[in-house]
Amino acid sequence: MQTVKLAIAGFGTVGTGLARIIEENKDVIFARCGKKFSITSVLVRDLNKQRDYFPGPDVKFTNDLDEFTSSPDVDIVVELMGGTTVAKDIVTKALEAGKHVVTANKHLLAEHGIELFEIAAKNNVGLYYESSVAGGIPIIQSIKESLAANRIKSIVGILNGTANYILSEMSTNGLEFDTALEQATRLGYAEADPTFDIEGIDAAHKVVVLTRIAYGKDYPLAKLPVEGITRIEGQDIRFAREFGYRIKLIGQVRDVGGKLEAGVFPALVKYTLLLARVGGNYNAIRVEGNAVGPAFFHGQGAGSLPTGSAVLADIMALSKTDTPDNTGFCNAPIEKADILAPEFATSEYYFRFSVMDKAGVMAALSKCLAEHNISIAQAVQKGNPDDKEIPVVFTTHKASTKDVNSALAEIDKMPFITRKTLSMRILKG
Amino acid sequence: MQTVKLAIAGFGTVGTGLARIIEENKDVIFARCGKKFSITSVLVRDLNKQRDYFPGPDVKFTNDLDEFTSSPDVDIVVELMGGTTVAKDIVTKALEAGKHVVTANKHLLAEHGIELFEIAAKNNVGLYYESSVAGGIPIIQSIKESLAANRIKSIVGILNGTANYILSEMSTNGLEFDTALEQATRLGYAEADPTFDIEGIDAAHKVVVLTRIAYGKDYPLAKLPVEGITRIEGQDIRFAREFGYRIKLIGQVRDVGGKLEAGVFPALVKYTLLLARVGGNYNAIRVEGNAVGPAFFHGQGAGSLPTGSAVLADIMALSKTDTPDNTGFCNAPIEKADILAPEFATSEYYFRFSVMDKAGVMAALSKCLAEHNISIAQAVQKGNPDDKEIPVVFTTHKASTKDVNSALAEIDKMPFITRKTLSMRILKG
Repeated sequence: MQTVKLAIAGFGTVGTGLARIIEENKDVIFARCGKKFSITSVLVRDLNKQRDYFPGPDVKFTNDLDEFTSSPDVDIVVELMGGTTVAKDIVTKALEAGKHVVTANKHLLAEHGIELFEIAAKNNVGLYYESSVAGGIPIIQSIKESLAANRIKSIVGILNGTANYILSEMSTNGLEFDTALEQATRLGYAEADPTFDIEGIDAAHKVVVLTRIAYGKDYPLAKLPVEGITRIEGQDIRFAREFGYRIKLIGQVRDVGGKLEAGVFPALVKYTLLLARVGGNYNAIRVEGNAVGPAFFHGQGAGSLPTGSAVLADIMALSKTDTPDNTGFCNAPIEKADILAPEFATSEYYFRFSVMDKAGVMAALSKCLAEHNISIAQAVQKGNPDDKEIPVVFTTHKASTKDVNSALAEIDKMPFITRKTLSMRILKG
Repeated sequence: MQTVKLAIAGFGTVGTGLARIIEENKDVIFARCGKKFSITSVLVRDLNKQRDYFPGPDVKFTNDLDEFTSSPDVDIVVELMGGTTVAKDIVTKALEAGKHVVTANKHLLAEHGIELFEIAAKNNVGLYYESSVAGGIPIIQSIKESLAANRIKSIVGILNGTANYILSEMSTNGLEFDTALEQATRLGYAEADPTFDIEGIDAAHKVVVLTRIAYGKDYPLAKLPVEGITRIEGQDIRFAREFGYRIKLIGQVRDVGGKLEAGVFPALVKYTLLLARVGGNYNAIRVEGNAVGPAFFHGQGAGSLPTGSAVLADIMALSKTDTPDNTGFCNAPIEKADILAPEFATSEYYFRFSVMDKAGVMAALSKCLAEHNISIAQAVQKGNPDDKEIPVVFTTHKASTKDVNSALAEIDKMPFITRKTLSMRILKG
């Protein structure tokens, strides 16, 4: 009987969950893979912090980075600290010391993944990261193994539970953005600094990771178009509903004639799609392959035990293999993606114009859109004659981002416009 | 560069799909796993049959079983014939000859899986079967690998696309069962003999396979309670809708205090659940683990390319490993399941009584249910005074199958009952 020794960097929510699963499910884990897993050391910032769960008396807690990384008595290093500085150092040293690494750190992978995969390859060790995208949902393994025979046409996901919780609360309980964010923070769904979640940055990290595993290509984070949910108002949620849509923060990558189009953006999702039904802080991903068709995955995108479940799946997988496959393209180097310039992306759109209620407004808006090849599908104007500002909402047929950008730049300079126009893509299928 | 040689038994829908994917996606397959896959021989019944797709001039077509099985020039045998006679023979011979086997045959696995796994283990070869359950949805791999750290609490699935298509048509287009079945047959969604699909037998095979991979236990097919959809009428679909449910054919296994409760039955599924949203001939499965929580998978449960995608995933996985894991419990033998006797299962229920419209009917029904510890949640009676038969529908709080069976046996003997009462379980979460 073999015992696999684990060193864990970071013992917060996920680390604690991992330790609990190792203890509570050890019989089924042993039956499944014939191995025992034992935590030998844990790196923490504060040795004196009160903790809900301790993984047994034999586990050495340390706050000394050198002591942690130099321990020879380790098979797999588990990085659960987050961030890109100390975490990068720990992962690099572990790989160079010939140890497998399991990480939940999408930020690190998005920024430095290519470099880290190279170090792992040089040392013939695994760098696994199932938990870095969509928590407990087995999306990395599924794309890497189960859908490996497919040419991936697109991946569309709800990849950030905090943003989805906020949008769901706005939709279900009629809250405005600020109130919903406040509530998410109070309930512990949003971090003290929610920037990464609400500005789409966390989802962007995940899109970069998904793009690599699906296409074997690197779409640099810095080039990814990213838009958050902070400009969405209660009225947008209600307009969307009237038209038969729910607003979701979407992370997407798709193959458009051999080029990759990727991005993070809020979108109106047709209510009949399963993606529109993803509530609260859940995550979901739809992968479309040229053989499998659309495959949809839904589950807990974060949290102690769900993320711990994904971390442990990686640990168990690495404990069984002599030939780890980190990128899913073991026979091809990860090369720079051939990127579809964002302005050439096409989509149906939702525009909410904020205007003064004057004669000729609708005509001016329609004329400008038509001049930029944008064809209107539906239009709604609301409000009372006394309102200082009223919303005019259009949905459009397919238009290019370029045309949309130039039309809206022109419109936003028109004298009757009271605030910057909000535009969102529409996803129907 | 290594070429993996495949022999395919059966070249119908799935075999053709597999051959097409191998050809059309060969570049991405090679990039992903560094191997080429080549079909060397194909076993068919009729050599002269017109075929839509031929896998190249080097492929030897034969209708001679001995010639097919004795060919030494094969790494993996792919069994896509279905049935349990010739297919069993082919799989057994291949395993005994030290060849890996990939099969889509849930019927064979449900009936003879234990024996075949033993032969595979003795010969240290793989017997993989991702495509046997839910077509393209990667449920076997996900339970075996990605959720391996979990104690599985339950699996609830829509596992038969034909039955789901029929129920969806009854629900969406108001068809009665016979018309919907006729339409499914005409469109090729149902086979000439649809018994396995509409009587729940095909779903039962899949429940046996899922139970093994999730729990490492054998729930004998012969002991599984199985009920099909043939008694469901348009009025049941409409009543269910009124109460906020959709009717689905469910395959289920769950851990009830250490015993396994499993079965196939039509059920009313709360409309808010993703399972209720599974339309047409799609499949879906919800797995609940004690760490991951609920994970939901949705996709094409059948068809040429989706099933081919799953078959090829198994082939690619086997081509990479020296230690195939067939059962997901490589360190524990598959033992007989400790079964919860079906009469002790508990559930909320839907009853549709067919009665003559007489005074005292409602009182007699309610009294009998109360005497059997069945508590009523909602009740509806419809119909006109002139009707010879009217439906009375109750939904109940949790009741045991035993109590339900004895209550309904008693009620069905009452003089005002015109036809056997229809009962279905209710799934709310």
